[in-house]
Amino acid sequence: MNIKAYIDKIVRDAKKASRLMAIADTSIKNAALEQMALNFTNSKEMLIVENEKDLRAAEENGLSSAMIDRLQLTEPRIDAMAEGIREVINLTDPVGEIMEDIVRPNGLNIQKIRVPIGVIIIIYESRPNVTADAASLCLKTGNATILRGGKESIHSNIAIYRQISLALEKVGLDKNAIQVIETADREAVGHLLKADEYADLVIPRGGESLIRNVVENSTIPVIKHYKGVCHVYVDEFADTDMAREVCLNSKLQRPGTCNAMETMLVHEKISDTFLPDIYKGMSDAGVELRGCEKSRKIIPEIKQAVEGDWSAEYLEKILSVKVVSSIDDAIEHISVYGSAHSDAIITEDKPNAKKFADEVDSAAVYVNASTRFTDGFEFGMGAEIGISTDKLHARGPMGLKELTSYKYIIHGTGQIRR
Amino acid sequence: MNIKAYIDKIVRDAKKASRLMAIADTSIKNAALEQMALNFTNSKEMLIVENEKDLRAAEENGLSSAMIDRLQLTEPRIDAMAEGIREVINLTDPVGEIMEDIVRPNGLNIQKIRVPIGVIIIIYESRPNVTADAASLCLKTGNATILRGGKESIHSNIAIYRQISLALEKVGLDKNAIQVIETADREAVGHLLKADEYADLVIPRGGESLIRNVVENSTIPVIKHYKGVCHVYVDEFADTDMAREVCLNSKLQRPGTCNAMETMLVHEKISDTFLPDIYKGMSDAGVELRGCEKSRKIIPEIKQAVEGDWSAEYLEKILSVKVVSSIDDAIEHISVYGSAHSDAIITEDKPNAKKFADEVDSAAVYVNASTRFTDGFEFGMGAEIGISTDKLHARGPMGLKELTSYKYIIHGTGQIRR
Repeated sequence: MNIKAYIDKIVRDAKKASRLMAIADTSIKNAALEQMALNFTNSKEMLIVENEKDLRAAEENGLSSAMIDRLQLTEPRIDAMAEGIREVINLTDPVGEIMEDIVRPNGLNIQKIRVPIGVIIIIYESRPNVTADAASLCLKTGNATILRGGKESIHSNIAIYRQISLALEKVGLDKNAIQVIETADREAVGHLLKADEYADLVIPRGGESLIRNVVENSTIPVIKHYKGVCHVYVDEFADTDMAREVCLNSKLQRPGTCNAMETMLVHEKISDTFLPDIYKGMSDAGVELRGCEKSRKIIPEIKQAVEGDWSAEYLEKILSVKVVSSIDDAIEHISVYGSAHSDAIITEDKPNAKKFADEVDSAAVYVNASTRFTDGFEFGMGAEIGISTDKLHARGPMGLKELTSYKYIIHGTGQIRR
Repeated sequence: MNIKAYIDKIVRDAKKASRLMAIADTSIKNAALEQMALNFTNSKEMLIVENEKDLRAAEENGLSSAMIDRLQLTEPRIDAMAEGIREVINLTDPVGEIMEDIVRPNGLNIQKIRVPIGVIIIIYESRPNVTADAASLCLKTGNATILRGGKESIHSNIAIYRQISLALEKVGLDKNAIQVIETADREAVGHLLKADEYADLVIPRGGESLIRNVVENSTIPVIKHYKGVCHVYVDEFADTDMAREVCLNSKLQRPGTCNAMETMLVHEKISDTFLPDIYKGMSDAGVELRGCEKSRKIIPEIKQAVEGDWSAEYLEKILSVKVVSSIDDAIEHISVYGSAHSDAIITEDKPNAKKFADEVDSAAVYVNASTRFTDGFEFGMGAEIGISTDKLHARGPMGLKELTSYKYIIHGTGQIRR
């Protein structure tokens, strides 16, 4: 197989399909989504058979049980996948929205119109449901999509892809509007990332090394988040009962997510009383604490944190703890070690709340709420394709609107520039 | 000089300054701009002396007279530079705008707030006034800026930079909010482009090879346009008088700009009458025409176009001409050879106008108007830092709003996620 020629054909076909998708009616896009959902529920058996090939390989390759669990397709998971697609049908199609409409003194009517981005490449790992989720969101927004999953889920991804293609063909859309790379060869990624003549955006989803590799090699714009090192700062003016609940929730509601708390900052004026309280709550829930000197003077059972702890994304029941002497200290710590994802302050003091919200340069800054809310559904977007910690185009949860661009359409009556 | 250490200090200082700039009041930012304008008009003599060093070097290095003209600072040009800055003072500061404000069913108040992007690197060539223009727009929007001009204008840029620094210090802003790279060593650019830990955006302005180099080497997001290959399509239903005026204006009002017409497409049903008419107008104005076979059958004086002509950005009095047999042909040609910058249709037929506007995937699509209007001032943005043919973040002219990002600030009363 000539990988370069294979990718070249894929990106050209995607570009062609994107031109048709850009003018496709909402009704036909929704019909395709409905057909996709139907095809998934009607082909569970086949999907599970193909998925078992991946599961067997995963076991042979000694993947962790957590990885294998994420990889597995079960009947309820396939139903959930179909349900997710049906939810996308119910979301408003943002394409065609008139975002601005002005008439200039010379009579030119300038309209800013929401349009699809074009061709989107998604590079991801393990979970085969991403294939269906990402495809459905990009389809709804009129984009052409190229999906490149991990080699550990290749049989599952291709099986899902077959059902997607059949759905597109059935409703009369260009089947190249959604394509899955059918080779696990890493060379394919290299060619994809240089296809800036045809593709408009790359979204990598996975571990930091995957994302770093994409950023370093892509000549196509990338939207990403490397990791989530999220903080809760318990201010001297905090309602400590609220602080305890929010900290426990931020750490424990789902520790493996990017918006879970990894570091807790506690003002020294309340640390003597708050730390023992939260230490008990965290310990009872099986959380290991790693702290600074000051925190260990209050609770000697807290382990000594090392420098690496402050920038660690544990994604498990470990929490680093630091006692700070001021809100400025807290903000400075977050600025140095944070990942600009989601950070919270717990305080009853309005000026401190405002200072924290203004000065912490993160996608989502919370005052008196759990960091766990950074999520497209929780933000009312209906769905999300990912979270961005970049500052360009999309920051925070990326919903349907964030999968669109705009163009200017200008109507005149023969205006020329003087 | 250790270039790596030098750049490392610059980007760190810029990041620090960006945190202060993000919370700076509009009034102090405007005071800095006013002081900058004042400093320029008060230091004309010094600026011209420094500029002369660049001019002498340019002559020694045999730069073209067009290049030398662009490089030159004169008293009126310095006044214009100051005037440009004063115009930025009068523009509305977009920072702090509440873009969305919703209350979720759980009581969380989610606000989407406009904030500066952070640290912006601008890499550009020749014109020293870019140093002042770009700095003033980035300052107004609360960004920290790192400017890297071409080596041909380094004395001028540093002289302008000194006046900017003095202005920042005088009003009490961090002088590192605007920095100019004071070495012409190309190694500096390489280090800048890898500083993704500190910088948020790179805007390259210059020739295609400069921009291509930035895209290939940067791990920081880039917004750019490679070139402007703009088309006017004269439809079979065109008002041919209007078509002639718009074509002449699009080509000739300023041929050296990125939104000037480079290729004219003419429907075959009107080519017999329209081509002789426009040929006369263009020839009289000194434009050389290069055309397809069909056009040369009508006007034998038209030179034979070669394949490279269809994608050429001439930036001078040369125009390629193609006779097309349908609007679909025209759209297809633009899709293959265009640069997604600015393209126009001249037609009195509404369905054709709509089809062209919908299907031509360019930043600005005109119906019955000159392509020359793609410009921040003409669009009512007040100023522009450049034009983007990318689809992410900013497309078309980039004004003040396009130099901002957003963050979510979420106020709660102790909400936790279930």
